Amino acid sequence: MRVGLDIGGTKIDAVALDDAGTPVQHARLATGFGSEAVLSNAARAVDILRDLTGAAFTSIGVGIPGLVDPRLGRVRHAVNLGLDDVDFGTALSVRTQAPVAVENDVNAAALGAYHLLDLSGPVAYLNLGTGLAAGLVVDGELWRGARGVSGEIGHIPVDPRGALCPCGQTGCLETIASGSAIARQWPSEHAYPAQALFAAADAGDLEATRIRAALAEGVAAAVRILVLTVDVESVVIGGGLSHVGRPLLEGVRQVLRDWAASSTFLASLDLAERIRLLPEGLSVAAVGAGMLVRPARETVA
Amino acid sequence: MRVGLDIGGTKIDAVALDDAGTPVQHARLATGFGSEAVLSNAARAVDILRDLTGAAFTSIGVGIPGLVDPRLGRVRHAVNLGLDDVDFGTALSVRTQAPVAVENDVNAAALGAYHLLDLSGPVAYLNLGTGLAAGLVVDGELWRGARGVSGEIGHIPVDPRGALCPCGQTGCLETIASGSAIARQWPSEHAYPAQALFAAADAGDLEATRIRAALAEGVAAAVRILVLTVDVESVVIGGGLSHVGRPLLEGVRQVLRDWAASSTFLASLDLAERIRLLPEGLSVAAVGAGMLVRPARETVA
Repeated sequence: MRVGLDIGGTKIDAVALDDAGTPVQHARLATGFGSEAVLSNAARAVDILRDLTGAAFTSIGVGIPGLVDPRLGRVRHAVNLGLDDVDFGTALSVRTQAPVAVENDVNAAALGAYHLLDLSGPVAYLNLGTGLAAGLVVDGELWRGARGVSGEIGHIPVDPRGALCPCGQTGCLETIASGSAIARQWPSEHAYPAQALFAAADAGDLEATRIRAALAEGVAAAVRILVLTVDVESVVIGGGLSHVGRPLLEGVRQVLRDWAASSTFLASLDLAERIRLLPEGLSVAAVGAGMLVRPARETVA
Repeated sequence: MRVGLDIGGTKIDAVALDDAGTPVQHARLATGFGSEAVLSNAARAVDILRDLTGAAFTSIGVGIPGLVDPRLGRVRHAVNLGLDDVDFGTALSVRTQAPVAVENDVNAAALGAYHLLDLSGPVAYLNLGTGLAAGLVVDGELWRGARGVSGEIGHIPVDPRGALCPCGQTGCLETIASGSAIARQWPSEHAYPAQALFAAADAGDLEATRIRAALAEGVAAAVRILVLTVDVESVVIGGGLSHVGRPLLEGVRQVLRDWAASSTFLASLDLAERIRLLPEGLSVAAVGAGMLVRPARETVA
């Protein structure tokens, strides 16, 4: 049996997978803050699953935000977790006595979505969280690219007169279609600020309507980039914003259909038919993490 | 021995490759116009190489502009050649008595550049011709995507206030960084209009300077898209505009360096170091065509 851990900013979502990759047990606990707290809670999640299943685990996979070097299991810049430059894979392996694979959380979710939704062909998982990024799955495996930056499409600028992005560029997709874009343009105390935005737009607020329309266009632009570059067969939309549900999906589809109506080239791509929403309640990042295979660590010469 | 044909708008560039993929003989003849003329000239190119080498050919590969279905060997919308909806692979196979693989010319050039430049890792060949498009090579093989539209990045819009593109969209990369973009903004009778543009800019013409700067930014934006989406290790710049040579490469590099100076994120990507110019005089599309393997044709149920 294998374990997958999705280590998020507030909670750890843990699953035990049987050999076919089917989740058989779940556990959820608080993440904590700082490397000691996060590591001991991650180890505790493994212990809980071991008690629940009574099984020994052959491998543990971790999906975690931040810059991850999957080869070394090293995590940098996971600011929400208070982790920077931590040899997370080794440390968790020592505590759990099992091999540990570590991957960026969006990539882990991409792999999990691919399997849980039983997809085929090249697939992108488009994560609309605080930021905007995609994970790519090709032939059933993660496509990380040459240096692990594949899918970082949130930092592709699409409007020279757009907003300044924290990355230093102007008009990045992430400044239009992400949780941070909504927070900047439509501040709210709502637990799901995107839902507050959609509700205000539904109620007729003109500014909310404009921001919502730009959001849908930005997501549509992300889909267009993924298809025109990688030519993925399908794009699964997930992340915090996806909790808005069908109104988001239909808004994006409408943009893609409007584009197709004015461009036979775009019409030939069937973009509106290639997108789908991640269903609620699936532990995609935890399941995907559980399916990770630890890459061979290069020996130092 | 194998044959590769690069069928361009004016000439057919033909090479014979030995079993290691090294070009051993070249031939060049006029393409002609219309399916009968193009097919008979393609067959003649094969005959000439057969006479020159005295060898039998085990396979023939064709790189050709237009929409190509590599599985069927079918070519559509090759308007400069007067070809539309021609079963080119089968027709040339009948005339030459050898199996024929057909591929889009940009994809063929990508494969040829990968081998002739002895590249490794995921690579993009960025073709700056009349249009702008990329061919992707992953693990030494063409990455065509789910429906054969991978690398069509010329139709990613990057400026909502940009020029109208013939594809029906606004502000596509192709309207900024391509032969057609130069023709629209800086009409010229020069054999190489891009060189005329660069010369005028060097001579101090303000409009030429502006167009040249936008061109370099557009190419840089294409590189950024390729790295942030696919994360190719290197981008080889080829096509008609690449004849401008180092001034083009250095102009693009300068844009990428300027961007890196204002974005630590972009700086971490080493974009300026990832690009290179296709050297002059390499028959990349013909050699790449010769390395094509004819895909298995699906049997009709």
